[in-house]
Amino acid sequence: VIAPGRNTEIVVTTDGLVEDVHFRRAWTSWHDVGHKALAVNLSDLAAMGATPRACLLTLALPPEMAVADVDDLIDGLIRLAAPSQAPLVGGNVTRSPGPVMVDVTAIGACHRRRLLRRSGGRPGEELHVTGALGAAAAALAIRQTGISSDVLADEERRCLERLDRPEPRLRAGSIVARSRAATAAIDISDGLATAVAQLAAASGVGATLDAARIPVALGARTWTARTNADPLALALSGGEDYELLFAVSPRRRGSFRSAVGRCAGEAPMTRIGRLVAAPGVWLERDGSREALPQGYSHF
Amino acid sequence: VIAPGRNTEIVVTTDGLVEDVHFRRAWTSWHDVGHKALAVNLSDLAAMGATPRACLLTLALPPEMAVADVDDLIDGLIRLAAPSQAPLVGGNVTRSPGPVMVDVTAIGACHRRRLLRRSGGRPGEELHVTGALGAAAAALAIRQTGISSDVLADEERRCLERLDRPEPRLRAGSIVARSRAATAAIDISDGLATAVAQLAAASGVGATLDAARIPVALGARTWTARTNADPLALALSGGEDYELLFAVSPRRRGSFRSAVGRCAGEAPMTRIGRLVAAPGVWLERDGSREALPQGYSHF
Repeated sequence: VIAPGRNTEIVVTTDGLVEDVHFRRAWTSWHDVGHKALAVNLSDLAAMGATPRACLLTLALPPEMAVADVDDLIDGLIRLAAPSQAPLVGGNVTRSPGPVMVDVTAIGACHRRRLLRRSGGRPGEELHVTGALGAAAAALAIRQTGISSDVLADEERRCLERLDRPEPRLRAGSIVARSRAATAAIDISDGLATAVAQLAAASGVGATLDAARIPVALGARTWTARTNADPLALALSGGEDYELLFAVSPRRRGSFRSAVGRCAGEAPMTRIGRLVAAPGVWLERDGSREALPQGYSHF
Repeated sequence: VIAPGRNTEIVVTTDGLVEDVHFRRAWTSWHDVGHKALAVNLSDLAAMGATPRACLLTLALPPEMAVADVDDLIDGLIRLAAPSQAPLVGGNVTRSPGPVMVDVTAIGACHRRRLLRRSGGRPGEELHVTGALGAAAAALAIRQTGISSDVLADEERRCLERLDRPEPRLRAGSIVARSRAATAAIDISDGLATAVAQLAAASGVGATLDAARIPVALGARTWTARTNADPLALALSGGEDYELLFAVSPRRRGSFRSAVGRCAGEAPMTRIGRLVAAPGVWLERDGSREALPQGYSHF
């Protein structure tokens, strides 16, 4: 039961992790599974500028799972829930004849005129992104090679940490929403290309990204240099970064910058492109223009 | 996004169905799986006296599942969501490497002074239950025998219908809550014995049930007469009836009766026992008193 304040709207979001689809026991601790199951939902609240109020946990567990592992999972969730002001207030546990499934519902609140949606963007507005991209995709590539972590660089190990323990950008979402400097926002769960396409489509506009400005995580650069891959492809198409993308009117640039200054401790903010009137999403690189590849498909 | 009214509290509940734990493809249509996944959550809202406002659906689906079956499932959910004022406003779909999992989150609203909890019961209050019990447990027993439905009586076939398509008692919950005649309530998902024990424990009291007054579904009586089983055991220990249990102060009996009169179209209401000061839950039958067996365990 949640008592909303005056003029607040309640935001409810739900997302889950399925064993062998979103995580593997061999790769991720149960503690991190619990953390991540909540983090992906808090990221959704952050993208709306909402303040977390509570969360619910639904577990489907195979009968042979050890109670100590369930404890670790719940502990991982609660250790993120507490500082995020999202107490675990309910849920249910059921038996699974197959994989472990962890579903979280997060509930947030936001002043009704501060709420950020995907659909508020207009042509001419700037696109800004928090943090750096491609770390989670690099981590997945690293894990898939089976390479020993002894031979990894520190920044590559930090990519593994980003994949397993994403930090929802709650402070950035809330501060930008309160500043009313952004017209639209989305979190980047399935790659930058998909997030830009979703925000642009919801706003009824198109978008152009400047390849040279897209912040690629250092570990993703190191890894792709080892493997002769394209670091930008990881940032554009790799999922699970959980950074935030904002559309900002040029007229509001001043209040946006001062809001960004107040959340600089959480993550830097980078201008990466702009919304345009014509539909479609484009990447400008080395003076040429190409259509952006779309992201991850679940099936 | 939900805009709450003045003095309302938001209630959020989540529950799910797992293939081969809560349903089998051979026994239940996908349409009914969708209906039931929402119904069990609406039943929780009904028990709090809350009015549904929205629902979210999370599906984990094996890749080979036919799109037409997914459509049927969603259709079953939506056909209950629409008349219940619980529009499907979000959710997500993911791949499952094993069984189909259907998780629903339901969001409701209630005036803050009308909200019913499990914990408000006091010694001396009466216990009342909606509808009749044991139908779902009889249906499960019928299915497990593999008996052809041709040889079943009409009332036994109605048990199968009750198991597959439970009707949440939204009207009864809401009308009783608005009348402020009940001090506590719970829905009966895991058998009457468990529900009474949970309400009594949350209220810090005990309870006594009168065996002769417990309403057993006609189909459950017919089936147990065929199989020489105890119909009362189905009502007490069989799950999935989704009726409501209320604690009512004798001083409020008048307003409770008039509230019950206004929801008589949905389900009858029967007084089945009372709360007592001493902890424990007891059944009075034929002049003797026995401890109540507890209900279903998930593991």
